[in-house]
Amino acid sequence: MNRSKEERPKARVPRGFRDRGAAEIAAERGCLDAIRQVLESYGFDALETPAFEYTDALGKFLPDLDRPNEGVFSLADDDGQWLSLRYDLTAPLARYVAENFQHLPKPFRRYQLGSVWRNEKPGPGRYREFTQFDADTVGSASPSADAELLLMAADALEALGLGREEFVVKYNSRKLLDGVLESCGLPLDESRETQLRRGVVLRAIDKLDRLGISGVRALLGEGRKDESGDFTKGAGLDKAQIDKIEAFISGAQAGSHRLEDTQALVSESHVGQQGYAELKGIAQLTQSHGRIEFDPGIVRGLEYYTGAVFEAQLTFPVKNEDGDPVIMGSVAGGGRYDDLVARFTGERVPATGISIGVSRLLNALRERKTTALLPLVIVLALDKEDRSGGFALAAELRANNIRAECYVGDGGMKAQLKYADRRKAAIAVMEGADERARGEVTLKDLVAGAELAKSVESRAAWVQERAAQVSVPRGDLVAKVKEMLASR
Amino acid sequence: MNRSKEERPKARVPRGFRDRGAAEIAAERGCLDAIRQVLESYGFDALETPAFEYTDALGKFLPDLDRPNEGVFSLADDDGQWLSLRYDLTAPLARYVAENFQHLPKPFRRYQLGSVWRNEKPGPGRYREFTQFDADTVGSASPSADAELLLMAADALEALGLGREEFVVKYNSRKLLDGVLESCGLPLDESRETQLRRGVVLRAIDKLDRLGISGVRALLGEGRKDESGDFTKGAGLDKAQIDKIEAFISGAQAGSHRLEDTQALVSESHVGQQGYAELKGIAQLTQSHGRIEFDPGIVRGLEYYTGAVFEAQLTFPVKNEDGDPVIMGSVAGGGRYDDLVARFTGERVPATGISIGVSRLLNALRERKTTALLPLVIVLALDKEDRSGGFALAAELRANNIRAECYVGDGGMKAQLKYADRRKAAIAVMEGADERARGEVTLKDLVAGAELAKSVESRAAWVQERAAQVSVPRGDLVAKVKEMLASR
Repeated sequence: MNRSKEERPKARVPRGFRDRGAAEIAAERGCLDAIRQVLESYGFDALETPAFEYTDALGKFLPDLDRPNEGVFSLADDDGQWLSLRYDLTAPLARYVAENFQHLPKPFRRYQLGSVWRNEKPGPGRYREFTQFDADTVGSASPSADAELLLMAADALEALGLGREEFVVKYNSRKLLDGVLESCGLPLDESRETQLRRGVVLRAIDKLDRLGISGVRALLGEGRKDESGDFTKGAGLDKAQIDKIEAFISGAQAGSHRLEDTQALVSESHVGQQGYAELKGIAQLTQSHGRIEFDPGIVRGLEYYTGAVFEAQLTFPVKNEDGDPVIMGSVAGGGRYDDLVARFTGERVPATGISIGVSRLLNALRERKTTALLPLVIVLALDKEDRSGGFALAAELRANNIRAECYVGDGGMKAQLKYADRRKAAIAVMEGADERARGEVTLKDLVAGAELAKSVESRAAWVQERAAQVSVPRGDLVAKVKEMLASR
Repeated sequence: MNRSKEERPKARVPRGFRDRGAAEIAAERGCLDAIRQVLESYGFDALETPAFEYTDALGKFLPDLDRPNEGVFSLADDDGQWLSLRYDLTAPLARYVAENFQHLPKPFRRYQLGSVWRNEKPGPGRYREFTQFDADTVGSASPSADAELLLMAADALEALGLGREEFVVKYNSRKLLDGVLESCGLPLDESRETQLRRGVVLRAIDKLDRLGISGVRALLGEGRKDESGDFTKGAGLDKAQIDKIEAFISGAQAGSHRLEDTQALVSESHVGQQGYAELKGIAQLTQSHGRIEFDPGIVRGLEYYTGAVFEAQLTFPVKNEDGDPVIMGSVAGGGRYDDLVARFTGERVPATGISIGVSRLLNALRERKTTALLPLVIVLALDKEDRSGGFALAAELRANNIRAECYVGDGGMKAQLKYADRRKAAIAVMEGADERARGEVTLKDLVAGAELAKSVESRAAWVQERAAQVSVPRGDLVAKVKEMLASR
């Protein structure tokens, strides 16, 4: 064990990963518990899948042997099969449903929370391991399945302590967007060039919040120069096409979106009408809620969504890293993805899901301190040869639901006070020989603990400094501690 | 998406991993919550470290490029550094303490729970991913730190619903064992041959529970032939040596161990006397508990323990996979390991810890059903075009703390009843046009749900079959559901 310094490994957390302490863990646990309780009350059951999936089941190609970890963390198992750590909770769900389809209730509704891993370049606030919380319904094409997720997301946000006016849950449909684009002469299943232009149009609509209607119009037409002078090439639509899209999204910009207004715009598109009918089904079940609304500007990523898409947003500003108030983007998002299970079975199974952004929510709720750690009482060890008196005091406090510990280290009074300070303890309890002879214990309020530890070198000095210190009969210990904690 | 069957991946959970469902997850969560509450009440703070550590920090050598995953799951990061998934929670703690030593309270007390991964051959009940729950105190050589862990472990077992008579927490010391071996002429830091013999002796003592005193005597002497005829070579001690060891462990066999009886046996060994004094310190703080006791037969693995060792055992039989009652081994274990941090810093830091075997405990408590899932109410969708009535009924039930869901699938009455059956729902609620006109809802007790789904083809047939079915005024819904759930 006495290896030379050169042989010793350096203690360091891996790049892009981090350790988390008690306060953050408690806040996240409080958040996860609140969400879980809502989801379980809706009859969603918990599911846990392993950290690893077979790489082919995750929907990535076999790792390139030169860069086997592109995007995901992958390794070859003993038997030559490639394993990858899950990068989300949807791909494992698809695998699970395909594997167990015969035995599952239909529809199958589950929630899952857990770590996911991304083998990406880490950056400020960007880690390679983080927590996701998903709820999905597999095996129902009914808009009621989407509506349920929206109501549940709203209930979950309220369970986290958000007021009704502090969030809004928005929905739209990729089919409705497809219908509008079809009406503009940009149908699905067309040439590659049309597909590319459709992508440009959808990304432009997605930027409505940020750029306003004039910015979006520029991106739909020739293009747009931003503040830095960079030019983004546009979709090259003509004025009639752009007007049609503006008619669709203008409600979003004005903050008043009537789903009914969109019907005429997609009257000639089959997929558009289908999307409209599905959104009507969602509206029927959610319109009385008040904070769940149609928003034609919601697009979501371009990946696998096939129908309804949704997004929950906070309406109040949150302080960013520089302390400036910013309106946070979505704190939950999801939609219909009817193709995922087909990867395994060849059969399309309708599915819809929502993913709650736990770390974004924690960030937004940070200043509310909804889940403070319990205050801590530390019983000092005045006689290190016999700590049984201190152990009994701490046990009595714990039996009365007070978080209490005895100092179990080897240090003297100064070290013990420094310890209490670092532990941010609320109260120190002492029972020395003097106190015991008198049948008393001494309690010290440690709010000013930092100064204490700096200035007090010995127990004698501390006893002299009597501010915020009180001796009570041994039998009054619990009552006095409770009183002191209540008055903080 | 319509790939041919050959191109489709097979949906399968990776070898040695498994999916877990709601009942098991709820049971584990109940277990973890109970343990966590006790540990936090003792002032232990939560810590989370990442899934990955640098391979050199885990204390393994760089992976052999031919077998890079021997024992642990390892892969090379972009920058060429090797990463491994943690195989326990102690190695990450050592890394964390070494990395943050300056800023930690001394002693540093933390608990951690989480998944660990072992790249081992899977077998029945042996998985490559499982949950650990550890508590450790770093930076104190005081026996009070060990005593605290023992008391805390006992409290945690009680918090899980175990009676005082159903468990026992045992402790011993590697130093005391070393002292006994030294008295037998097998000192530490001797020749390799002596070290090997010491190992044989310790393993023999470890088998006292199973083999009894005569079996251990055989293993200490020439050797022992087991029932199958296999011969295990012994340590080759002479009769005087064997008698001395029997004198030490005989109390363990008789079930009455007096720590004081061992003092004379190690009177001439410095390390033995040190161990004895430390155990006296532990005994002083735990002897009044009643279920924490010295046991000279406790050895624990031969790895890194350097002082006190402990083990919690259940005293009642648990059914094994074949349904036969067996006495389960330890459900928690630990001890002092003063050398771990020195790997990084070169400085010895005294440390002690305990690891609670969550899956073993869950297994033992399985039949007690301490954490049943809440019963589920399913509101059937009689009018699939307008489910708003059903959504309102479910919301009202949830608002009264009843777990309730609407059927959100696309199926008819038969599919809905089959769904309710697979979901093991307690009650089905129906509000058809008839009921609504009368201002009523119909409730059906689904205890016999399986038979129901088999025999009932249509709603008409179901309504006719009136057993366990009742219609109540809409306003009495919640009260009636509560009454039916209470009478189950």
